[in-house]
Order: sequence, then C-alpha cells, then structure tokens
Amino acid sequence: MNKKVIVLGGDGFCGWPTSLHLSNLGHEVIIIDNLSRRDIDNELEAESLTPIQPLGTRLNTWEEISKKKIGFYNMNIASEYDQLLKVLQEEEPDVIVHFAEQRAAPYSMKSPKNKRYTVNNNINASHNVLCAIVESGLDVHLVHLGTMGVYGYGTAGMKIPEGYLDVEVETEEGEKVSQKILYPTNPGSVYHMTKSLDQLLFQYYNKNDNLRITDLHQGIVWGTNTRETNLDERLINRFDYDGDYGTVLNRFLMQAAVGYPITVHGTGGQTRAFIHIQDTVRCIQLAIENPPADDEKVMIFNQMTETHRVNDLAKLVSEITGGEIAYVSNPRKEAAENELHVKNDLFLSKGLEPITLSEGLLREVTEVARKYADRADHSKIPATSTWTRDQKPGIPEKEEENLMN
Amino acid sequence: MNKKVIVLGGDGFCGWPTSLHLSNLGHEVIIIDNLSRRDIDNELEAESLTPIQPLGTRLNTWEEISKKKIGFYNMNIASEYDQLLKVLQEEEPDVIVHFAEQRAAPYSMKSPKNKRYTVNNNINASHNVLCAIVESGLDVHLVHLGTMGVYGYGTAGMKIPEGYLDVEVETEEGEKVSQKILYPTNPGSVYHMTKSLDQLLFQYYNKNDNLRITDLHQGIVWGTNTRETNLDERLINRFDYDGDYGTVLNRFLMQAAVGYPITVHGTGGQTRAFIHIQDTVRCIQLAIENPPADDEKVMIFNQMTETHRVNDLAKLVSEITGGEIAYVSNPRKEAAENELHVKNDLFLSKGLEPITLSEGLLREVTEVARKYADRADHSKIPATSTWTRDQKPGIPEKEEENLMN
Ligand SMILES: NC(=O)c1ccc[n+]([C@@H]2O[C@H](COP(=O)([O-])OP(=O)(O)OC[C@H]3O[C@@H](n4cnc5c(N)ncnc54)[C@H](O)[C@@H]3O)[C@@H](O)[C@H]2O)c1
Ligand SMILES: NC(=O)c1ccc[n+]([C@@H]2O[C@H](COP(=O)([O-])OP(=O)(O)OC[C@H]3O[C@@H](n4cnc5c(N)ncnc54)[C@H](O)[C@@H]3O)[C@@H](O)[C@H]2O)c1
Repeated sequence: MNKKVIVLGGDGFCGWPTSLHLSNLGHEVIIIDNLSRRDIDNELEAESLTPIQPLGTRLNTWEEISKKKIGFYNMNIASEYDQLLKVLQEEEPDVIVHFAEQRAAPYSMKSPKNKRYTVNNNINASHNVLCAIVESGLDVHLVHLGTMGVYGYGTAGMKIPEGYLDVEVETEEGEKVSQKILYPTNPGSVYHMTKSLDQLLFQYYNKNDNLRITDLHQGIVWGTNTRETNLDERLINRFDYDGDYGTVLNRFLMQAAVGYPITVHGTGGQTRAFIHIQDTVRCIQLAIENPPADDEKVMIFNQMTETHRVNDLAKLVSEITGGEIAYVSNPRKEAAENELHVKNDLFLSKGLEPITLSEGLLREVTEVARKYADRADHSKIPATSTWTRDQKPGIPEKEEENLMN
Repeated sequence: MNKKVIVLGGDGFCGWPTSLHLSNLGHEVIIIDNLSRRDIDNELEAESLTPIQPLGTRLNTWEEISKKKIGFYNMNIASEYDQLLKVLQEEEPDVIVHFAEQRAAPYSMKSPKNKRYTVNNNINASHNVLCAIVESGLDVHLVHLGTMGVYGYGTAGMKIPEGYLDVEVETEEGEKVSQKILYPTNPGSVYHMTKSLDQLLFQYYNKNDNLRITDLHQGIVWGTNTRETNLDERLINRFDYDGDYGTVLNRFLMQAAVGYPITVHGTGGQTRAFIHIQDTVRCIQLAIENPPADDEKVMIFNQMTETHRVNDLAKLVSEITGGEIAYVSNPRKEAAENELHVKNDLFLSKGLEPITLSEGLLREVTEVARKYADRADHSKIPATSTWTRDQKPGIPEKEEENLMN
C-alpha cells in the first residue's frame, strides 16, 4: 500500500538514500531540509569524500531515471513552524520520517556555541514536528531516528533491550509494584543528550495526544551507497571522513585508503553497534510498514545488526588494506572498555537480512574509499573536538609533526 | 559564610522573596530577569491580586529599609548567552539560583505557540546557564527549581523518593546488577515535561563537567508574603489568581474572598504536595548552605511540607470563609484520583520547621485575599486552557451564564 511520506532531513547521509528507496517502492516522497549539513561543511571547510551533487541535480536525476518525482521544501523545521504546519496541512502525509537533527557528537562538543546550536536545533526541531502534527489534526505516523548512544557505554555487560525496562517500585505499604519505564539513559555527549531529551518529548505527546511514534535507536551507520544511489553517479551518497562528522568505520576505511594512520582513540576497547546504510533504509521501510496501533506506546527498536570492538575493526581494516594502526589519545570522555549486548529481535523478526561487515567491507574500500582518495584533505582527518578542556585531540604523533610543518 | 548569589528570575513569585531573604542573611545578591512574567500578565490581560511594584521601586525600597543593595541585570538568559557569560565572568558568583522558566502548566497548554515558547524558553535557559558555567571555568553551585509534577500523579500509592531509584538490570549472562537511576518521570503537561528535560541536562553536565548542582523538586507554593516582603507595602509579593498562573490553593482563597465559587476540577480526588512561600525561601537557604561535594551526583530534594486532596482543601477554605464549592469539568488530562507519598526527610533533617496550612491559611485570607479582593477581575478566574481539543474549560455553570451576558 503506497503512502505519502515526508522525509525531514532528506538531503542527509541517511535521509537521501531513504528517500530514494521509499520512492522506488512506490511511495510518494517529499523532502524537507534546510541544507544545514552542507552549510556546516562550509563552516568546517570539509567536504564529503564522494562528490555529492546539489539537491536539485539529485532530484532531477532521480526523475530522469525512475520517472518518479520527489518533492522538496527548503525549510528550517526548528525555527519555521508556521511553514512546517502549512506543508502538513496541504500535503496531508501518512508518515513523517524525521532525520533532521545535528547528528555529530564531536561537532556538538566543539565549543559552547556548538553545544547550544545542537540543543536548540534538535529539541525545537522534534518539538515543532510534534506540535505541528497535533495542530494539523492529521493521523500521522512519526518515525524518528534516535541512537543507541543514549544508553552510554559505561556499564559493562548490560543487555540493551528495545526501549523499555520493567522495574519494581515500592508503595507506602512496602508493596512492590511493577512499572514499565523508558530504559534509563546515560548519554555520552551533548548530541546524545538531545536524543534522550527527544525520547521524553515523544513519550509525552504519545500520552497526551495519542501520537503514533516509532523511535529507531540506530547504531553507527557504515557504507556509502544503496541500490538506488548506485544507479547513477549523480545520485551518489555522502561519505563523511572529517574529525567531526566521520564515523568510526568509514574513517578507518578512508584513512587506510589515503595512507593516513588508522587512528584508534584510547585502547580501542570500546564496543559499538553497527549497521550498513542499505540496512538502514530497509529498516525505515519495515518501520513504515509496521506502524504502532492507535493506543500503543512509543515503539522503540534497536536499529543495528552487529557489534564490534573498535580495535578489532581497526585490525580488520588494516588486514584488508595494509594500513598501519596508530593509538591516539581519546578526545571523548567515556569508558575505555565496554561490552555491549543489544537486542534487535524486532527487525530480524520482520524479515531484515543484514549485510555483514565481512561481505561489505572490501567493496567499500575499492568502490569508494580508494576511488575518491584523491579528494581527501588530510588536515581534516584528526578528531580535534574534545569533551572537556583537560582532554587532548586524537592526532597521531607522526601527523602532529606534519601539521606543524 | 556570606556568598555571592545570582538569582535568575529574581522578579518572580518565588525569586523575589528569595532574593530579599538571602540579602537579609548577608549574602550579596544579584538578580537577572527579563521581566517576561510581567509581559505575560499584559498578554493575558491579567494582574497580580496584590499591587506589586516595578522592580526598580522594589530594589530602591529594599535599599532604603535594609541598607543593602541588590544588583539587577535585565536579560533574557534563554537568548542572550554572551551577556549571561559576561555577567558570570565579571561577578564571579559562588551560587546561582535558577527560577527563570515559564512555570504555568495551563499557560504551557494554551496553544501550540505557548507549548513552543515554554519548551524553547525553559530548555535554552537551563542549557545556557550550564554552558556558561562551564565556559566561565568558575566553581559555581547551581540551585535549580524543579517540580514534583515531573513524576505525574497517575500511579496510585507510589512513594516518591528524593530523586533516584535503585533498579536491577540484567546482564547477558542473566546476572542481576543494581543501578541508581533518575526516578522515572511521567510529566503531566508541556511545562512539567520541560522540567524532566532539565533533569537530563543537569545529569549530563554533572557527569561530563563535574558541575555541582542541587535540583529542588518543589510542591505547589501557597501564601504570599515572607518576613521581608512584609516589611513594606512596596515589597509585597505577587499573588496570581487567573486561570493560567493561579495555583490551586491561592485560587481557592481568592475565589472565596471575592464571592466566586471555589472551583474544583473534576472530583477533586487529586492529591498534591504543598509548601508555604516562607518555607520555600528557607529551603533555598538550606540548599545553599549544604552544597554537593565536588564529585557528587546531582542532589535532588523534594521541597514540600504537606500533601492534601484538592477536595479537602476546597472544603477547608469553604469552612473558613463560607464560600460555596462548584465542581467543574477538568481541563487537564490527569488521573481523577491519586495518592501521594513524598519523602522530604532531607530538608527536615536540616532543620526546616514547616508552616502548616492550618496555621497559615486564615492569615492569608484576611491579610491578602480579602484585603485586595476589589482588585480582582472575575473574568480572569476560569481555567480556560485545555490539555486537548476534546476537553472543556473549568467554568462553573453559574458563571458561564454571567460570561455570556
Ligand atoms: N549517521 C549515523 O551513523 C547515525 C547513527 C545513529 C543515528 N543517526 C541519526 O540519523 C539521523 C540522520 O543522520 P545522518 O547521518 O543522515 O545526518 P546528516 O547530517 O547527514 O543529515 C541530517 C539532515 O537534516 C538536515 N537538518 C538538520 N537540521 C535541520 C533543520 N532544523 N531543519 C531542516 N533540516 C535540518 C541537514 O541539512 C541534513 O541534510 C540523525 O538524527 C542522526 O542522529 C545517524
Ligand atoms: N510557584 C509554584 O507553585 C512553583 C511550584 C513548583 C516549582 N516552581 C518553580 O519555581 C520557579 C519559579 O516559579 P515562580 O512561581 O516564581 O514563577 P514566576 O513566573 O513568578 O517567576 C519566574 C521569573 O523568571 C523570569 N524569567 C522567565 N524566563 C526568563 C528568561 N528566559 N530570562 C530571564 N528571566 C526569565 C520571569 O520574568 C519571572 O520573573 C519556576 O522554575 C517554577 O517552575 C514554582
């Protein structure tokens, strides 16, 4: 059954391939984006490793190839509420997929200005969407992208369930009563904190206004292209590698490809959850096809397919590519080592067949990292945003000298 | 030991008497306020029952009487970050008491605009304060006013502890591990939701930047004047009675005084926690005198002294005043009846001797409600902000007719 879907943040790394995937499936897709991610590239003087095209070119190319039209509104959903409401009233979407937040933890820690931008942008974005849905009176299914990082990674060996925890609380009479609560969060950065605030916004609007909401707690996305973005070079997806926006696995791949040391922060004992971009778009599809019932609580799924220690990933990439590993100081404030046990039964039970690292990694090295290696700006690779004043950026010694030359 | 204290929101109902109390004790007090509460009075065409004076007059009067100077900056802390930081750098306070938020639940539910204002104002205000403390590098003790309403009142008979809950979570191996978490929240309005977001901000900045924070979960404040505001008519404190800002007990008192029905929302089976304004200022003093240690978690105290069913309060006020009770429809979405068992051992153990309702109520009726009854605008009494479209405002039948005439 085809639906009308608004994709907030549809020009981004996850939003663009999701828009194409949903359009390809026959849904009517409309993108809302203020292109702030491209503006931040300008601000950081960084760029996608892959040559992404302006959104107009992307949309025209897609229409040319697929004969399908994707709509677009250039709009800041955190500050242009009246316009957002108007689009909802006019377009009457069945589903809103909400990717439109500042999503880099290091960027959120870069300076007081960045902390404040991240909180202001993300909270007002999510809250405006909720308000606008209520004010429109439409029965919209909201699908939001959260992160597994809200739980923090400090507590060794904890099983991360899908969203909720049963706890016992005591009554005055000493009786134990069972209660289902949001799994307690322990966010590791200002960015992650905004996602744990988002959870409370969703919980409240679900309770007060019966909004139907799916919150996807996503792991770290790796890979670049999907079936649709591969159809034409002009549809190519974003590949971030800079110290602020590049995520760990993609950074390793590109560092190896350009002959930069593979930089492991701290001991590399951190365990993280991963998912391939192709599986991200499949999961969004599954979430749309399985909306919550009318009176259901916020549905929370863990959107990830495998967990790995950062150090093991570095070794794997090093084996494939011959790249050398450098252990650098960790600019983040986090546990040096942790275990991670994540439940992802819900997506698996709905038919997700994950792309594993072992099958996809080599392709990523040859088809993306090496292919575009000459576009890389080495000076943008180090992770320079630190969590507190006392911490040091993650720069390999060898490169520190290069930077000084 | 005298401290330098900045009082954010020092022109408000709690902030003004707190500023005077702290100044009287010998602390150096500086008020920051953007006077938004007075602007909202203009917007709502409502007014304090008591004739509050402009802040300039208040401050001059205090200097005249006490020979003590209270400083003042007119500043919006949610939007004027650079100015806020500058004041911190220049004044180097030991303590910041943070009252500066939009604090009325009905106002927060009045319209999408009000919901958005409340979220934007309160979250950015709190976050800016946290950011500015970190950026200033000062060792400041932040005392924030939260609310007991974050817990919601749905769950019958729950004992509300002071902030934290011990829960058991399961490891992969099926082992149970104990963890101390923020007591799970279940806020009853957008306003209350902002306070549960605040909690996560405090938790994060305490963890990442070791900020020392006390979060006071306050009950409903009743009463008007304190020892200091009683010293001169020009120091008189605010008394809100309108449908948006008036809190339940003060509303009952003034309704009785002006011959308006005492309006109970729903059955009146709701149990709420209360504290007298004189005890509020004492609690703030105690919080300042007992700051958290350097590496301590956010300290959370329940700032309340007694709990009552709304219906019992209405009967009590009716007995004292002869006023008639009217049961009206409840504009809020909340449990019709609830129990409430609150721990407040911490303040009691630190020497608080509460003013009880039974001793203070009559004085409030004669010295405030009846004295200023002629200032009341009856058309502002009904609670007209509803929680959802399907709900009705809380207007007594008799008055509905009056309103239509
Ligand atoms: N990439 C990952 O590894 C990852 C992992 C977990 C969760 N997520 C979440 O998935 C979502 C999408 O991530 P991404 O990697 O595609 O990020 P991205 O930055 O590439 O895309 C976000 C898009 O939203 C837009 N945007 C931001 N604020 C906006 C606003 N106020 N109004 C309109 N548009 C706005 C940006 O311009 C950008 O195009 C984010 O919420 C992120 O937190 C991503
Ligand atoms: N009054 C109660 O019964 C009660 C109960 C529980 C908790 N509280 C909490 O105590 C605090 C104080 O409550 P109150 O009754 O004194 O409220 P109030 O509205 O009378 O006072 C708040 C003051 O803060 C100022 N303010 C608001 N936003 C500001 C901003 N962005 N910049 C600068 N100043 C700003 C207002 O102008 C006002 O003077 C609030 O946080 C409230 O949530 C109050």
